[in-house]
Order: sequence, then C-alpha cells, then structure tokens
Amino acid sequence: MDSDNNWRERLYVMIFQTDTVAGRRFDSTLLLIILASLVIVMLDSIDSVHKNYAPVLAGIEWGFTFIFIVEYGLRLYCSPKPLRYAFSFYGLVDLLAIVPGILALYYSDAQYLLIVRIIRMLRIFRVLKLSPYLKQANYLLAALRGSKQKIIVFLVSVSTLVTVFGTLMYVIEGPEHGFTSIPKGIYWAIVTLTTVGFGDIVPKTPLGQVVSSLVMITGYSIIAVPTGIFTAELATAMRGDSLKHDCPVCNKNTHEPAAAFCARCGNALFKKLE
Amino acid sequence: MDSDNNWRERLYVMIFQTDTVAGRRFDSTLLLIILASLVIVMLDSIDSVHKNYAPVLAGIEWGFTFIFIVEYGLRLYCSPKPLRYAFSFYGLVDLLAIVPGILALYYSDAQYLLIVRIIRMLRIFRVLKLSPYLKQANYLLAALRGSKQKIIVFLVSVSTLVTVFGTLMYVIEGPEHGFTSIPKGIYWAIVTLTTVGFGDIVPKTPLGQVVSSLVMITGYSIIAVPTGIFTAELATAMRGDSLKHDCPVCNKNTHEPAAAFCARCGNALFKKLE
Amino acid sequence: MDSDNNWRERLYVMIFQTDTVAGRRFDSTLLLIILASLVIVMLDSIDSVHKNYAPVLAGIEWGFTFIFIVEYGLRLYCSPKPLRYAFSFYGLVDLLAIVPGILALYYSDAQYLLIVRIIRMLRIFRVLKLSPYLKQANYLLAALRGSKQKIIVFLVSVSTLVTVFGTLMYVIEGPEHGFTSIPKGIYWAIVTLTTVGFGDIVPKTPLGQVVSSLVMITGYSIIAVPTGIFTAELATAMRGDSLKHDCPVCNKNTHEPAAAFCARCGNALFKKLE
Amino acid sequence: MDSDNNWRERLYVMIFQTDTVAGRRFDSTLLLIILASLVIVMLDSIDSVHKNYAPVLAGIEWGFTFIFIVEYGLRLYCSPKPLRYAFSFYGLVDLLAIVPGILALYYSDAQYLLIVRIIRMLRIFRVLKLSPYLKQANYLLAALRGSKQKIIVFLVSVSTLVTVFGTLMYVIEGPEHGFTSIPKGIYWAIVTLTTVGFGDIVPKTPLGQVVSSLVMITGYSIIAVPTGIFTAELATAMRGDSLKHDCPVCNKNTHEPAAAFCARCGNALFKKLE
Repeated sequence: MDSDNNWRERLYVMIFQTDTVAGRRFDSTLLLIILASLVIVMLDSIDSVHKNYAPVLAGIEWGFTFIFIVEYGLRLYCSPKPLRYAFSFYGLVDLLAIVPGILALYYSDAQYLLIVRIIRMLRIFRVLKLSPYLKQANYLLAALRGSKQKIIVFLVSVSTLVTVFGTLMYVIEGPEHGFTSIPKGIYWAIVTLTTVGFGDIVPKTPLGQVVSSLVMITGYSIIAVPTGIFTAELATAMRGDSLKHDCPVCNKNTHEPAAAFCARCGNALFKKLE
Repeated sequence: MDSDNNWRERLYVMIFQTDTVAGRRFDSTLLLIILASLVIVMLDSIDSVHKNYAPVLAGIEWGFTFIFIVEYGLRLYCSPKPLRYAFSFYGLVDLLAIVPGILALYYSDAQYLLIVRIIRMLRIFRVLKLSPYLKQANYLLAALRGSKQKIIVFLVSVSTLVTVFGTLMYVIEGPEHGFTSIPKGIYWAIVTLTTVGFGDIVPKTPLGQVVSSLVMITGYSIIAVPTGIFTAELATAMRGDSLKHDCPVCNKNTHEPAAAFCARCGNALFKKLE
Repeated sequence: MDSDNNWRERLYVMIFQTDTVAGRRFDSTLLLIILASLVIVMLDSIDSVHKNYAPVLAGIEWGFTFIFIVEYGLRLYCSPKPLRYAFSFYGLVDLLAIVPGILALYYSDAQYLLIVRIIRMLRIFRVLKLSPYLKQANYLLAALRGSKQKIIVFLVSVSTLVTVFGTLMYVIEGPEHGFTSIPKGIYWAIVTLTTVGFGDIVPKTPLGQVVSSLVMITGYSIIAVPTGIFTAELATAMRGDSLKHDCPVCNKNTHEPAAAFCARCGNALFKKLE
Repeated sequence: MDSDNNWRERLYVMIFQTDTVAGRRFDSTLLLIILASLVIVMLDSIDSVHKNYAPVLAGIEWGFTFIFIVEYGLRLYCSPKPLRYAFSFYGLVDLLAIVPGILALYYSDAQYLLIVRIIRMLRIFRVLKLSPYLKQANYLLAALRGSKQKIIVFLVSVSTLVTVFGTLMYVIEGPEHGFTSIPKGIYWAIVTLTTVGFGDIVPKTPLGQVVSSLVMITGYSIIAVPTGIFTAELATAMRGDSLKHDCPVCNKNTHEPAAAFCARCGNALFKKLE
C-alpha cells in the first residue's frame, strides 16, 4: 500500500501545486477545458447554432461535466484532508461547476448556471507565476480597504442624488415622456449620472433638459471623487508611508519617510561616519 | 415630578443619542421606517400598482406620516431646548418629512415631495459608528473646499465651451436635424461633452460631425481636469494629519503630529522656556 | 481743461479698474448686460419665440449693441493710450462684440456671431476678487504646459487608433449598416472611443461587435492616460518641487524637498543649535 | 566611383537623418505625401465621390504608390546595410505601405489596407524635434510597464464581470428584448460597463434595469482603478529621474541625480578608494 500512498501523493502534487512541470501542465490543461466549456455554453445560446447543433453541443457539455466530476473525485481522493478541501473556497467553486451540468438534465435553463465555471478561471493567476500578481492584487485590495469608508460615503451620496433627481424628473416629465414611475426615473438618473446615456428615455420638456444638464455635469464632475480617493490611497499603499528604523537613542521606530533626525528626541537617526 | 424628568431624560438619550443599546435600536428602526415610507411612495408612482392598491398605499402612507408626527412631537417634548432643535438642520428636515404628507390630502401631487424624507437617511451615518465616516467626509469636504476656486475656473470654462459649441452646431446643423434652437444646441453640447451621448439629437452634416468630434475629444480629455484637481487636493488633505508649524531654523513647515524636534535639521521645534 | 482731465481720469479708474466701489459696480452691471444680451440671442433662436416677438427682440438687441458701442467709445476716450487698448486682447474682444450687431442689419444670420460676446464674460474673474483665481488658473496652466508634449503623444496615438479602427469597421460592417465611408467610420470610432456612444451608428455583425468591444475597452482604459498625466503634473506644480536654501558650505541652492544634508558636499544644511 | 559613394552618402543623410536642412525638408514632404495619400483613400470610400471621380482618384493613388516604391528603392540603395533596414520596424512598415497599392490591382478591397500607411505617420515625431517627445513617450511606456501586472489583474476582473453580467442579462431579459445570445449579452455588458451606452439594446424588465444599474455603477466606479494605477505609476516614473543607489548607512534608495552625499544622513554615498 506504500506505492499507493506514493501515487496519491504524486497526484496531489500534480493537481494541487504548480511548482512542478506536471503541475503546471495539469493546471494549463484544466484552464483550457474550462474555457472550452464556457465557449460551448455561449455558442449553445445562439439561436441559429442551437437549432442545428443542439444534440452535439449537449453531448460535449456532458463530456465536460464528466471530466469535472472525475477531477473533483480525484481532488477529494488525493487530498490529505478531503473535508477541508471540500469546504474551502476553491472546493465549493469546483463543486458549483458540476452541479448545474447535472441539473440541466431536468431543467434546461439550468445550463446557464454553468457560467459560474468562470470563477474557476481565477486559477489563471496560479499559472501565470503566482506571486507578483498576488502582490499587485494586494496593493489594489489595500487601496480599496483604505478607501472603504470614503466609498460608502460616496455611494450613499450618489444614491441620494439619484433618488432625488429621479423623482424630480418623474414629476417634471411625467409618464407621457417615458418616465412612467419613480423607479424608472431613478433608473434614468443612474443611466445619466454614470454618463452611460442609453437614450431609451430622454427628457423632452425644456425644464427637464435643464435638470438633465445638471445631472450630467454632476455625473461628469463627481467621477473625480472615486478616482481621487482610489489614486490617493494607492499612492499611499505603494509609497509604503513611513521610514522603519529604530532611533538609536529613544527607540522610536517609525519616522517621516525622509527624516534625518528623530522627531521625538532630536538625535540623528544615522551616525555620520568620520 | 422627578420621575417624569427622569423619564424625559431617558427618552432624550434614546432618541437623540446612539451610545446606548436602546438608542441604536431606535435609530435603526427609524431608518427602516423611513426606507419603507420611501418605497411606498415609489411603488405608488407605478401605474399598475396605483390602479390596484391606491387606497391601501394611501393608508400606509398616512400611517407613516402619523408615526413621524408622533416622533417629531416626542423630539420636541424631550429635548431640553425644543426651539434649538426645531431650528437645527435635523429639526427642519424632520418637519419637512411630515408637511408633504399633510399637504397630500389637498394636492395629490404633493406626495412626491415625500421624497425629501431621503434626507433623513443621512442619520444612517450615526448608526454605522459615526466618527470614522464623519472624518472621511471631512477629508472629502476639505479636498472640495481646497479646490473650490479651481472648480469655479473649470465650470466657467466648461460653460463657455458649451455655449460656443452649442451655437456653432445650431448654425451648422439647423432645425431640420433636431437643433431647433440655441438652448437645444447647448443641451446637446452638454450631453456630448459629458460623454453621456443620449443619441436623441445627432449631427447629420459632415461639418457637424467634425465639430462633434472636437467636442467629444475635448470632453474626453478635460475630464482629467476635475479629477486631477480633486486627487491632488485629496492627497494633500490626507497627508494633512500633520503638525503645521514652521521650524525656527530650517522653516520645514509640516511635521509628525507628535514631533518635538524637526526631522530635517534636528532642532527643537518649540523653545524651552527657562 | 484740468477738470476735464480729472473727469477723464476718474472715468478711466471706474471703467478699467475694479478697486473702487464705482469700478466694481460698473463691471458688475456690464456683466449683467452682456449676460442679458446673450439670453436675448438664445431666445431669438427659439422658433415659437421668434415668430411672436422677433421685432421686440431685434429692438432690444439693437439697444444692447448701442450700449456696447457707447462703452467702446468711452473706453477709447478715457484710455491714456487708446491705440494700445484697441489692439489689446480685451480691446479686440470688445470690438468683436459690436461688429456682428451691425452686420446683422444686412445678413440676418450674422446675429449668431453675437455669441462671441461670451468671451467678454471672462471679465467675471475680475469681479470675483481677481488674484486667487488667477493663481489657480496659473496652476492649471502650468500643469497643462508641463504635460504639453505628453498630450501631443497621446493625441497622435488616439488619432492613429481612431483612423485604423474606423477603416476596419468600414470594411467589416460596410455601408448597409450605416458605415457609409471611412470618414464616417472614423466619426463612429471617435464617438465610441470617447465613450459618448450616441447610438446613431451601431455595429450589427458579430465581428463588428468584437472590434467595437475592443474599441470601447481601449477607450475606457486610456482615459487613464490624460488623467494620470494631468494629475501628476498638477501635483508637481502644487508641491513646488524642491527646497530652496543655500548650502552654507558649497552654496548649492536647490535640494530634495526633505534634505537635511547637502547632496553635493555632505554638510548639514541647517546648523544644530546647542 | 568615389563621387558615387559620396552621392549615396549624401542621399543617406538626407533620407535617414533629420539634422540637416535637406533631411528635415525630405521628412516633412514625405509626411505630407503620406497624409495626402490617406486623404485620397478616405475620399474614395465616400460613395458620391467614388461615383464621380473613381478613375481620377485611382490614378492619384497609383501616383502615390509609385512615389513610395521609388522612395523604398532609394532607401534600400543608399542604406549602408540594406538588409538590416529591410527587416527593421520602419523598413517593414515602408514595405507594407506599398504592397496594398499593388494588390488593389487585383482585389479592389485591398485598397483599404492602404490605411496602414498611417503607421508611417509615426515619423512625425522625428520631424517635431525628436528627443523630448521620445522621453515623454518613454515616461508613458515606463508607467505602463510598471503597471502591467495590475492592469492584467484589472482586465481579468473586468472580463469576468462582463461575462457574468452578460449571461445574467441574457437569462433575465431574453431574446425578445434584444439579448439574443450570451455573446450578445456580453457585448451589451461591455457597452454598458465602459459607459458607452449605444442604446441599441436596452433592458426592458424591471429586474433587468436593476441589474443594469448595478453594471453602470460598477463601470462608473471601477474606472478609478486603471486611472489610479496609471497615475501612481506615472508619478513614480516622473520622480524617477533620480539616482537609484542604496545609501550604505541609512538605506535611503533614491537621490538627486548628481548626489555625492546622502541628503538624509550626510554620509558619502560612494566609498572613496585610498
């Protein structure tokens, strides 16, 4: 049974790690299969394709689901702590990638749930040399975390603006110009404030156009706010803020980035060599 | 009467403060009621809902107005300085949240004024642990205040651009392509410069399309201006947690908040009196 | 004749300067008149207004032109160096504000040229306490000047992108989907790249939609470029870059913003007081 | 044969360099010809022009192709290392500018390939005093290179978002509202997320409009991400005219370009060998 354990371990290294050649090859192949399975779902949604190739595509889809079931089984089998894997983030996602394929047998609409397989694509960062990307993602996340409260303040303000402007436009323009209800007015205000401007609902009255102009200029200007918040936080996260160095006299350990003297005791932080 | 005073004081703590459990619960409940009342106004504006449930919704709306009247009365009653509350920002907003409900009895359109209740939602910042949000809002406000003059210069330039381009397009395209007047041309210029682009009015002549291209590229580029202004100011405001004091020797003017000595020249920032 | 000179000088102070009460009042009144004259031009362009009030509006317009002629005459009369004024920027603008009013007698379309009067509105900065605004405008101009070359590189790249994409879409979509010529394709590419998106011309073929997606994501991403350029330049312009201080030993006069020692000779820039 | 070599060398200087008057004049003329040839291609694509002037334009086009053939021959002839030129970037572009003109004899659609001549316009930077522009372009490229990984993280996230939202909208809205397939849904999601908003496909169901609002607000907010990334990197790249060298005492790692001593601790940056 020792050779069995050995085989299981080698399988584990191949499936779960990316350091070995086999591991990288396994992950790359897996990504390609996931991508192919996504493409099949998309193709199947095109009417003309569905009419002509529905059975073929369903067969291929089944093949992919089978592959993923086998893969999931192998992961459970070779994992030293199967339960831990099963309830980890990746484990749940891997399960989610299988379920809709089985559900699709009974409810044909369930196949669109297959699109959750895209989450599995996150493994792509493991293939493209993991660590530098993660570090970059960490910078971005640090910047986002640092600006969380500012962003909530911003989103609450935007929601308020959008509600007020949407109601105003509903009252001004009325149902005959497409503003059939307050929620529709709010939808319009979001479309306009974010500068998307579909044009399915547009103001017709002069007063409505004046209010619209206000909404548009507001939207055009306040985009500066999330951008400014994020940029300032990112610059801070990248600069790494303060000088870490123990003051030789008072042991104060963080200083202004360019400090030459300790701000607490006034002694030179770095000895001048004679 | 001492117990009455005591009861009033406890009511005051519950209604006006958020430090106690009761106070937080009161504010949370109030927010939910405000939200519910806003949802009712919105639902009532949808035609199909209005047709079938108008009396029910009007009744619920009345209930909410009644609750707000009671709440306003209690606030006046338990406040140590009722007049001061009545004329404070929140006091006026609380009053404004009631008036349209009563007006709606006589003028049915007045009910849309109920949307001002959204301003009461600002209390949400009191529930979500007040202070850090306020500090963040202060940063944003400081950045906006710091960039006020730059923003005025920017808005005046944009207004000028929009007027000139709007008139130009009116002359070039003329009423037969939807540019029926100069104000309409200006409205179009705003829609285009802010990159909203509804598409309700579009240039048809080649020359008009050339001018439009100019407007669009201008709009696409000058969005950099408010963003740049705000970002630079925000970065300054965020850095500004620092001690503003001219070093008597080297004139370095910002220091760590607790600095006793200048980090650049090592001299004491503040003279020690003998 | 001394009293005449005196009177002329007082007129000069009132018309050309904004330090005195009379001067400010004169400039404010002038701005209001300019604004009113612009509003009249705009109103006159609205068809329903024009039909009913054309003669009245023409009369008012004439009145304004008359006022501006008188004002121009007074400026020439009281200016110590009339020719210098006449050929200054403001002098030419003031003249331009009159000419179309006279031309309009012969060519009715010329009245739209009256919109050039908006340039006179620039005087508004003189009324709103001049200097801080000018300083802010200088910051903005310094930032723009500093980024001039980067902006040219950016605009050339955008023009190239737009031409290539426009031609590509013309070949892919063809005249039957609205892309009737290469210039039209370029116009579409500008509309799309700048994220305006009128929707008057939209891709219909799958390949066209793929290329469009590329254009849109490009446009969405490269807006970061002018914003980044301008923000970085503005931050530099506002920070004021370097420490100006003569090194006591080698007289090097600019240093890193936080320098404690001279980078050329290694001596302390600021004496440490014992 | 010496005079022939001399003549060839002078030709080389004129054609390949921009330091001499003749060289600048040659490059300017070439740019004008390229521009003219692009304009001809564009004009020829306009239907009404094509109908009336097709033979004339084809003739002119032929003339331009002939000029470019001659120019390419001269470049090959006078270049000291013809093969090296032929396989350089500019050499290949110069060849590409000729081929479609010849292909157009057999396939009339090939003439649109002539638009690749726009790449030759890159020579414009050589005419407008080369070096400062190249330096600026280098800054931009350095900023882009520095943010490459962050941008990949960003693009992968956007692709995921767009796929998920596109599928969701296909399921919610369905073919009867224009969302005829998942790829079409993804196309719509890109149009909306990038705030282009053509308006050719718009959500009709309330649920679809709620999801759209989410997409729009996401798109409006996350534009901050590439902008923030690029701005922070550009600021770093612009600051980076500095000397990168770890101070042996305090580890300060950037210094003025000509620094001999560390501005923070005053120690010599480089050991003096005895």
